[in-house]
Amino acid sequence: MPPPADHVARLRLIRSDNIGPVTYFQLLARFGSAQAAIDAIPDLAARGGGRAPRLAAKAEIEREIAEVARLGARHLFLGQGLYPPLLAELETAPPALIVKGDLTLLDRTSVALVGARNASAAACRFARQLAQAMGAAGIVVVSGLARGVDSAGHDGALDTGTIGVIAGGIDVVYPPENVERQRAVAERGLLVAEQPPGVEPRARHFPYRNRIIAGLTHGTIVVEAAPKSGSLITARHAAEFGREVMAVPGSPLDPRAQGCNQLIRDGATLVQNADDVIEAISPLSGRPFRQRELDYAAPGPSADADEGARRVVGDLLGPTPVPVDELVRQSGLPPATVQTVLLELELAGKLERHAGGRVSVAS
Amino acid sequence: MPPPADHVARLRLIRSDNIGPVTYFQLLARFGSAQAAIDAIPDLAARGGGRAPRLAAKAEIEREIAEVARLGARHLFLGQGLYPPLLAELETAPPALIVKGDLTLLDRTSVALVGARNASAAACRFARQLAQAMGAAGIVVVSGLARGVDSAGHDGALDTGTIGVIAGGIDVVYPPENVERQRAVAERGLLVAEQPPGVEPRARHFPYRNRIIAGLTHGTIVVEAAPKSGSLITARHAAEFGREVMAVPGSPLDPRAQGCNQLIRDGATLVQNADDVIEAISPLSGRPFRQRELDYAAPGPSADADEGARRVVGDLLGPTPVPVDELVRQSGLPPATVQTVLLELELAGKLERHAGGRVSVAS
Repeated sequence: MPPPADHVARLRLIRSDNIGPVTYFQLLARFGSAQAAIDAIPDLAARGGGRAPRLAAKAEIEREIAEVARLGARHLFLGQGLYPPLLAELETAPPALIVKGDLTLLDRTSVALVGARNASAAACRFARQLAQAMGAAGIVVVSGLARGVDSAGHDGALDTGTIGVIAGGIDVVYPPENVERQRAVAERGLLVAEQPPGVEPRARHFPYRNRIIAGLTHGTIVVEAAPKSGSLITARHAAEFGREVMAVPGSPLDPRAQGCNQLIRDGATLVQNADDVIEAISPLSGRPFRQRELDYAAPGPSADADEGARRVVGDLLGPTPVPVDELVRQSGLPPATVQTVLLELELAGKLERHAGGRVSVAS
Repeated sequence: MPPPADHVARLRLIRSDNIGPVTYFQLLARFGSAQAAIDAIPDLAARGGGRAPRLAAKAEIEREIAEVARLGARHLFLGQGLYPPLLAELETAPPALIVKGDLTLLDRTSVALVGARNASAAACRFARQLAQAMGAAGIVVVSGLARGVDSAGHDGALDTGTIGVIAGGIDVVYPPENVERQRAVAERGLLVAEQPPGVEPRARHFPYRNRIIAGLTHGTIVVEAAPKSGSLITARHAAEFGREVMAVPGSPLDPRAQGCNQLIRDGATLVQNADDVIEAISPLSGRPFRQRELDYAAPGPSADADEGARRVVGDLLGPTPVPVDELVRQSGLPPATVQTVLLELELAGKLERHAGGRVSVAS
């Protein structure tokens, strides 16, 4: 059975280098389907004054879909079916995930448990016991299948429900000693990857992985984290996403406790046991999801831009990132028109998107 | 030179069993001087329907004053001269203190450093270093000259300024091994006692001592405290008095950290070093003191109670403590009249005062 044409078209956009989550989302919202967006791209890019980005080849995507199926995994697409609703709230939600295992875990209250790869034995034991106690209370424990605290968290929750989010492809194990643990998480829990099969994790993939961990969950707990560590970035994401940030304290004499103690000083909830966690997340675990407009069935209102709009927006853009809202305000144009101009410029390779909904001319 | 008559009269009231800080304060406010209050007491008690409390004998007080002078110490009276203004803010401020040492320390920004008597060696080392660093920053370190954290705090701040508040008389050392440390604090810092010389500390004296420690200082830091320990009571007092409450965290695996971690969960500021302490107390250290009306030179407005007032207030009183404000509201009487009736009843041994400005019939 050939793969659904819509999935192929979506992945052709998603796997293209120049189309990030925000652009993908806008293309689908504007044109109603991935195929309609693909058809429109050359024209859009031409209006933006450049050449259309090279999309991923159809054959390449068909190979990916076949490989994912062969691995016993499947794609989840943003805005469709089982895609986790908490993650879908993010402005930069991954347009597609590859998952393997028990998909019902995505529907339960979940907490991320993250921390140092070189955590102390005591911290690992604590993480395992905390995961076990949270699991007994019905909470799904999410982590990154790294060494140290991550591994301990997965181990503690293997019987009750755990989700491992990995930086590379769904079939790639890192670190190598986690081969058995990753297999166990996929068989008894759920394994989640953003990259296609076969992709070895690179440094730039780990921040994406951390963002997914924070976005999937109702809250993030940090156990032993050095200042500036990835765990603290996950915690920062959780705060940005409006999720609960929790930290396990330690003695000021222990350098490994400094990151967590600082988090608590900055407002994170100090947690010592599963009861503290349950108390902290209970206001969030029952809240309705913030609905984003993810129904692409009907294309958005036509918002074609004319030369005047292109000139006005082009004049306002510079090398310094500026919020799109600011462009709308200063240009006096309808928001949809400004978005169209930005989309054209981006597809022509002349626009760069930055964090916080800001844009600049491409450097 | 004979002691000032006013000091003798004040101490005769203060050293009487049935006259607590609140009653003492009201007597002086009502009658303008301790001697005038002493003269009025038999009449007041008779109106309350009982016998006047036995006041401390004049000779006994003269012996106390002579002994305090012999020990190189002195009395400080609430509302007079060098009595520490932060402590004077308390509704239950001790009417008199006995102090020995460097009185200028009472005028500086100060922080209490308290904790477990059986603290770990690491915690004691941490407390000593923290005290040293706070001292270097100009902060006076106040503690209770107990074993463990208290002793470490005094040791760390001996060169820069430390105040030891003890539960017994100024000439009594407890625990015995602190004899050298207590001498050093009196010689290089300041020693403070509420009880007269010669009084051995009893269990009931330690809560008074803790209240003074919290009341003297801009904030209280707790290092390693068991749940329900005296250190946590000191911290609770600090919070009641509007002072900063700070705690040093520890691993949830360390039972000695539980009290501090819970304090932080309850809103105490997590501190790891002197900079954190300075940041926490800076909003408080420069604030003007809340002035209580401590000028007794002129007696307060006459607020004699008549039989009607006595009957109304008496009917409203029962064995369950009730706020004085509530009595005023329900009786419809002027507040000063209600206070007079309560004073009469108390001096007659028929009223009991409770925390939070509540009163009941004496049990």
